[in-house]
Amino acid sequence: MDKIHLALICFAAATSIGLTGLGAGIGMGRGVESACMGIARNPEAKGPITTTMILGMALIESIAIYGLVIAFILLFANPFKDMLM
Amino acid sequence: MDKIHLALICFAAATSIGLTGLGAGIGMGRGVESACMGIARNPEAKGPITTTMILGMALIESIAIYGLVIAFILLFANPFKDMLM
Amino acid sequence: MDKIHLALICFAAATSIGLTGLGAGIGMGRGVESACMGIARNPEAKGPITTTMILGMALIESIAIYGLVIAFILLFANPFKDMLM
Amino acid sequence: MDKIHLALICFAAATSIGLTGLGAGIGMGRGVESACMGIARNPEAKGPITTTMILGMALIESIAIYGLVIAFILLFANPFKDMLM
Amino acid sequence: MDKIHLALICFAAATSIGLTGLGAGIGMGRGVESACMGIARNPEAKGPITTTMILGMALIESIAIYGLVIAFILLFANPFKDMLM
Amino acid sequence: MDKIHLALICFAAATSIGLTGLGAGIGMGRGVESACMGIARNPEAKGPITTTMILGMALIESIAIYGLVIAFILLFANPFKDMLM
Amino acid sequence: MDKIHLALICFAAATSIGLTGLGAGIGMGRGVESACMGIARNPEAKGPITTTMILGMALIESIAIYGLVIAFILLFANPFKDMLM
Amino acid sequence: MDKIHLALICFAAATSIGLTGLGAGIGMGRGVESACMGIARNPEAKGPITTTMILGMALIESIAIYGLVIAFILLFANPFKDMLM
Amino acid sequence: MDKIHLALICFAAATSIGLTGLGAGIGMGRGVESACMGIARNPEAKGPITTTMILGMALIESIAIYGLVIAFILLFANPFKDMLM
Amino acid sequence: MDKIHLALICFAAATSIGLTGLGAGIGMGRGVESACMGIARNPEAKGPITTTMILGMALIESIAIYGLVIAFILLFANPFKDMLM
Amino acid sequence: MDKIHLALICFAAATSIGLTGLGAGIGMGRGVESACMGIARNPEAKGPITTTMILGMALIESIAIYGLVIAFILLFANPFKDMLM
Amino acid sequence: MDKIHLALICFAAATSIGLTGLGAGIGMGRGVESACMGIARNPEAKGPITTTMILGMALIESIAIYGLVIAFILLFANPFKDMLM
Amino acid sequence: MDKIHLALICFAAATSIGLTGLGAGIGMGRGVESACMGIARNPEAKGPITTTMILGMALIESIAIYGLVIAFILLFANPFKDMLM
Amino acid sequence: MDKIHLALICFAAATSIGLTGLGAGIGMGRGVESACMGIARNPEAKGPITTTMILGMALIESIAIYGLVIAFILLFANPFKDMLM
Repeated sequence: MDKIHLALICFAAATSIGLTGLGAGIGMGRGVESACMGIARNPEAKGPITTTMILGMALIESIAIYGLVIAFILLFANPFKDMLM
Repeated sequence: MDKIHLALICFAAATSIGLTGLGAGIGMGRGVESACMGIARNPEAKGPITTTMILGMALIESIAIYGLVIAFILLFANPFKDMLM
Repeated sequence: MDKIHLALICFAAATSIGLTGLGAGIGMGRGVESACMGIARNPEAKGPITTTMILGMALIESIAIYGLVIAFILLFANPFKDMLM
Repeated sequence: MDKIHLALICFAAATSIGLTGLGAGIGMGRGVESACMGIARNPEAKGPITTTMILGMALIESIAIYGLVIAFILLFANPFKDMLM
Repeated sequence: MDKIHLALICFAAATSIGLTGLGAGIGMGRGVESACMGIARNPEAKGPITTTMILGMALIESIAIYGLVIAFILLFANPFKDMLM
Repeated sequence: MDKIHLALICFAAATSIGLTGLGAGIGMGRGVESACMGIARNPEAKGPITTTMILGMALIESIAIYGLVIAFILLFANPFKDMLM
Repeated sequence: MDKIHLALICFAAATSIGLTGLGAGIGMGRGVESACMGIARNPEAKGPITTTMILGMALIESIAIYGLVIAFILLFANPFKDMLM
Repeated sequence: MDKIHLALICFAAATSIGLTGLGAGIGMGRGVESACMGIARNPEAKGPITTTMILGMALIESIAIYGLVIAFILLFANPFKDMLM
Repeated sequence: MDKIHLALICFAAATSIGLTGLGAGIGMGRGVESACMGIARNPEAKGPITTTMILGMALIESIAIYGLVIAFILLFANPFKDMLM
Repeated sequence: MDKIHLALICFAAATSIGLTGLGAGIGMGRGVESACMGIARNPEAKGPITTTMILGMALIESIAIYGLVIAFILLFANPFKDMLM
Repeated sequence: MDKIHLALICFAAATSIGLTGLGAGIGMGRGVESACMGIARNPEAKGPITTTMILGMALIESIAIYGLVIAFILLFANPFKDMLM
Repeated sequence: MDKIHLALICFAAATSIGLTGLGAGIGMGRGVESACMGIARNPEAKGPITTTMILGMALIESIAIYGLVIAFILLFANPFKDMLM
Repeated sequence: MDKIHLALICFAAATSIGLTGLGAGIGMGRGVESACMGIARNPEAKGPITTTMILGMALIESIAIYGLVIAFILLFANPFKDMLM
Repeated sequence: MDKIHLALICFAAATSIGLTGLGAGIGMGRGVESACMGIARNPEAKGPITTTMILGMALIESIAIYGLVIAFILLFANPFKDMLM
């Protein structure tokens, strides 16, 4: 079990993208839901609704990107790399 | 138990795609739900609703893709591969 | 307990398809729900509703496919196979 | 405890069908719910509603089938069988 | 503790039927709920509603059957039986 | 702790009936709820509503029976009985 | 810790009645809720509503009885009694 | 730790009454809720509503009694008492 | 750690009152909610509503009393007291 | 670790007040909610609504008091005090 | 690890205030919600609504105070202090 | 691992502020929600709504302050400080 | 494992900001939701709604700040720093 | 296992961004939802709605930034770095 810390770092990367992805997925689903229903109610407002949805979902996407960045840092730019060997 | 870290990396890959898939699945379900209901209410708006749904679901799909990417990196391009042997 | 890592890999495959299947199942249920209710409200829109539902559910199905792919990779194309023996 | 890995593989098969069955069961329940309510509201649309419900539930059923397939593979076509003995 | 793996296989069988039964029970409850309410709203549609409910619930029942099949296989046709003794 | 596997089998039987009973209890509650409300709204439809409720609840009851069957098998017809002594 | 398996069997009995009781309690609560509300809306339908509620709740009660039966069997007719001493 | 099994039996008794009490408490709360609201809507139906509520809550109370019975049996009529000393 | 079983019995008492109190608290909250809203809608029905609420909440209170009784028995009339020393 | 049982008793006291406080807090919140909304709808019924709310919340408060009593007994009148030293 | 019991007592204090604070926070949020909405609907009833809200929230606050009291007792007036050294 | 109790005290401080902050955050969100919606419905009642919201949220904020106080006491005024060294 | 307490302190800091951030995120989401919907219903009340939202969200933000403060104290001003080396 | 504390710090960083991202994702989803629906109802209020949404979501985004900051500090500016080697 002398290499289990390497596996735990991989698990940490998976947790990072997993939890942020869970939140972002649920959140973005609400965004799509509201946009589709809004267009159905008021098709003439398609332009501003789509613009708002994309703007908002880009902000939520950034949450998932943060998790992805931490995951990549843990895997490819791990600051403890020298100590791990 | 001297090879259990390899199994834990596999488990990390499964967690990565599992959690992001859970969030994306729930989120995309809301997207389909709203699109179908929107078309039923206002069939003439089928075009923009479908466009919006596909745009939004592609963004959610990207969340699952992130989880898939981390899973593939953990399995096929593991940065700690040299240390694992 | 010198072979428990093999069992853990099997468990990882089950987790991968299990969690993505859980999310996809809940999500696709919403899709079917909305499509049936939409057709009941507006039977004339059956065509576009069914098309949208199938399109959306194919996207959700892809989430479960990702989990299945990871499960198959873990079992049949495990990149650590040489090290496991 | 030298055979516990065999039991863990059985547990993995149970988890695989269990989690996918949990998601598929909840999802299909929504499908039946919407179909029954839709027919009650609009009995004349019975044909397309039933068609849509069966189409959608077949897609959800496929999720449970994936879990079943993984469970059968783990039990009867386990790729690590040679190593388990 | 040299026979604990046998108990774990029994536990796996219980998990298999338990989780699928949990999902199927919740799902079928929605089916009965909608059918009863649908008949109350529109008693004349009793025929097609009951037909649809039975069709749908048979599909959900199949989920529980899958779990039961895995449980029986684990107990009576365990593929690792030779190794367990 | 050389007899703890017997206790674990008892625990497995309890889990089997417990989880299926949890799902069936929640599901059947929805069935009773809808039947009572349906009769209150439309007392003349008492006959078909009660018939449908009993039919549906018998299907849900079967889920709990499955769990009971597995529990009885684990306790009284345990296929590993010879190995347990 | 040579008698801990006896305590675990007691714990299994408690789990059996506990989980089924949790599900049955939640389910029966819905039954009472709907019956009271139904009588308030339509007091003339008191007879069939009460009959239906008692019929349905007896079916749910049976779930709790199953859990009780398993609990009693585990305690008073434990099939592994000879092996436990 | 040679007496920890006695403490575990106490814990089992607490779990038994705790889980059944949790379910019964939530369920009975729904019963009171519906009865109070029903009387507020239709004060003239106070008699049958109260009768139905008491009948239903007695059935739910029986769930908690089952848990209490198991708890008392575990504590005062434990079938394994001879073996516990 | 030769006295940890005493602490576990204390923990069991806390679990007993804790879980029953959790359920009873949530359930009684619904009772108060419905009674206050019912009086606001129909102030003239204050008498029967309050009577019903007190009757129902006394029944729910009994759940918490059961948990309290078990907790007191565990602490002050523990049937295993002789064995604990 | 020869004094860890004292810490576990403290933890039991915290669990006792914690779980009952969680349930009572959620339940009392519903009581305040309904009382405020009821007064807003029907200000003339302020008297009976406030009386009912206080009566009901005193009953819920008693749940938290039970948890507090058990916590105090565990700390200051622990029946196992002689054995703990 | 001979001082870990001191840390566990600190953890118990944190659990005590944490769980009661969680319940009280959720409950008090409902109180504020209803009060603000009630004033918006009926501004003239501001006086009694605010009085009721403060009265009710003081009762909920008392729940958190109980948790705080237990936490302070565990830290500053621990009845086992003599035994802890 | 002879200093792990210090880390556990830090963890206790984090739990204390974390759980109270979780409850207070959810509760205060409801307060802001209701205040904004109330002002939108009845802008003239802005004054009393804002006053009530601030009063109520200050009470909820006090919950988080309690958690913060316990956290600070655990870190800077730990009553077991002499024993920890 | 003689440095694992340092890692646990880092984990405590992450828990502190994580749990408070979870609560604050959910709570602030409700605030934005209500503000946007309120402006849509009553655009003329934009000023007071925005003021109220910012005031309320600043109060919720303070919850997250508390968690951040504890996290910073744990990392940079740890009161047990002298004992940790 | 002498380097597992490094892995635990990585895991702490993942937890920090993960939990805050989960809360922020769910919260921001509500923001986008309300903005899109608000524009659909009242397209003329697009300007202030978008302004409010961006203002509010920036505040929520700050929660995720806090989690990111703690994660970066744990990885790149760990205050215990000297002690970790």
